[in-house]
Amino acid sequence: MTQKTIVMNDKNLIAGIDIGGTGTKIGIVDFDGKIIAQALIDTREFSTMELFVSACIKKISSLSNLHRLAGIGIGAPNGNYYSGCVENAPNLPWRGKLELAGEFTKQSGLKAILTNDANAAALGEMMFGGAKGIGHFFYITLGTGVGSGIVADGKLIYGHDGMAGELGHTIAVKGGRMCGCGRKGCLEMYASVRGLVLTARELISQYPGQSALESKIDFSAKDISDAAKNGDAIALKTFDITAEILAISLANASAVTSPSHIFIFGGLAKSGELLMVPLKKYYEQSLLNVYQNKVCLSVSELPDSDAAILGAAALIRNYFM
Amino acid sequence: MTQKTIVMNDKNLIAGIDIGGTGTKIGIVDFDGKIIAQALIDTREFSTMELFVSACIKKISSLSNLHRLAGIGIGAPNGNYYSGCVENAPNLPWRGKLELAGEFTKQSGLKAILTNDANAAALGEMMFGGAKGIGHFFYITLGTGVGSGIVADGKLIYGHDGMAGELGHTIAVKGGRMCGCGRKGCLEMYASVRGLVLTARELISQYPGQSALESKIDFSAKDISDAAKNGDAIALKTFDITAEILAISLANASAVTSPSHIFIFGGLAKSGELLMVPLKKYYEQSLLNVYQNKVCLSVSELPDSDAAILGAAALIRNYFM
Repeated sequence: MTQKTIVMNDKNLIAGIDIGGTGTKIGIVDFDGKIIAQALIDTREFSTMELFVSACIKKISSLSNLHRLAGIGIGAPNGNYYSGCVENAPNLPWRGKLELAGEFTKQSGLKAILTNDANAAALGEMMFGGAKGIGHFFYITLGTGVGSGIVADGKLIYGHDGMAGELGHTIAVKGGRMCGCGRKGCLEMYASVRGLVLTARELISQYPGQSALESKIDFSAKDISDAAKNGDAIALKTFDITAEILAISLANASAVTSPSHIFIFGGLAKSGELLMVPLKKYYEQSLLNVYQNKVCLSVSELPDSDAAILGAAALIRNYFM
Repeated sequence: MTQKTIVMNDKNLIAGIDIGGTGTKIGIVDFDGKIIAQALIDTREFSTMELFVSACIKKISSLSNLHRLAGIGIGAPNGNYYSGCVENAPNLPWRGKLELAGEFTKQSGLKAILTNDANAAALGEMMFGGAKGIGHFFYITLGTGVGSGIVADGKLIYGHDGMAGELGHTIAVKGGRMCGCGRKGCLEMYASVRGLVLTARELISQYPGQSALESKIDFSAKDISDAAKNGDAIALKTFDITAEILAISLANASAVTSPSHIFIFGGLAKSGELLMVPLKKYYEQSLLNVYQNKVCLSVSELPDSDAAILGAAALIRNYFM
């Protein structure tokens, strides 16, 4: 591998960290994208960000000799690539502006690069997954929220302020559902795991007595998926509505950068064809004719459990390539 | 100027061509963006594209010695940067796939580069207008249609197929007005000169007897602008509705690439504050908080009559820089 020669001496490993509100995943990754060791720590255990970073580095040291590491890549909600900071991430236990990349470097002496989780995953897909060699693509994460990484001309677009790629907070339904960001109708409120459940609940209240889901006090996206597989009309309609809203947003964003591929990842991607079949149909219908039948929509090739770590590691690999 | 040294010998002029359905503008531009000679030819006079190109080159020769030209930049509707072709532009007199850049090179022996008119204008703004040194911006043309050029990391985004930047054909109003592209609700049907007139007509039929515009058999965007300046409520409402629809589309596109600037150009930009004041208000309201109060919306600094030629010339200047 040519890139190995670029990294000095025997520094041919990378620490990839995926910081989540509850758990933080840490992995040691080689330059071919193989995770050779990994661990999990509880994000909520630490009263300050500095203590958390210290624990992460201790864990990294237990997994690999620090001298073998080319750097530390970090994916975190609201992570800003340019500043290396996380600002006011609602689901992290520490408030204010967190200088995470700087703190990792300070405590470890290693190069540390931060970005948001969806951007990191997009890089991971580009380096280690199905987007190898693809210059223009979207990476869409449909989980608790909706995240996105936008790649054009082979480079992740960070924008002027490091905050590009927030498709989840584009307005998909004018005057629609209230979003946590304070605005109405964000894509995230429709195309996330939570959005799917909300849509199913709305349909059930509109068409009572027509879905097996109604018998459950509470139901999850997986329950909707299972019901749809059994032919439940309400569950199928839920996927259809979700797919159409997501498709129009993706088609509109496609007219900005004209990607050749869109990779779907996260909880909703697990629904497979239930989502992807109507998504492809509505996506093509919503595209201008010059874009039609050119874009490949598919589920991400990254293994679910590894994607976040690989994505974070890709930040460092990208830096040295 | 350092860039002059990059171009060999005395080839320090560029031919910029803006091909329109009725007229084609030709200009000789120096590397500082000064138009030193220009001419106009009637696009419709030529039975074939080849004869048209021949006439253009003859005209260029009459304006400048061909040996002094670094190349020929061409902006044309539906122009594809990668292929150098125009395909099925509805308002050009020749049908099929037109290999314009290739034909210009074949007949002149000069480097020729083609792109669509809005992309060319974005480059013009970047090289010679208000976007000098700005790495992330949108250039939006609000004329008969709505065009856009998207710049990220200092480069125009062409996308995988050379067709990126078609904001005019993003779906702004689901199930809305029928567009010439065959779909419904495209931004172009609301935020163009034509869209403005359609909105005013709709409001007049909804609120009869309330606008001075109603007395005219036909009225133009300029008439609406004049009426709004006189306080005509329907005309003001027309601008308000237009601005809101455009603002949401721009805010949604901003979440893709996070630009620091948006430049507005074309017929509607002439309405000045009538458009820009509500546009800025709705744009900020429609942005995710992390983007708010960071983006500068302004009218393009390129002189109206020169923009197209400068933009086309910028294609060549960009190539040599």
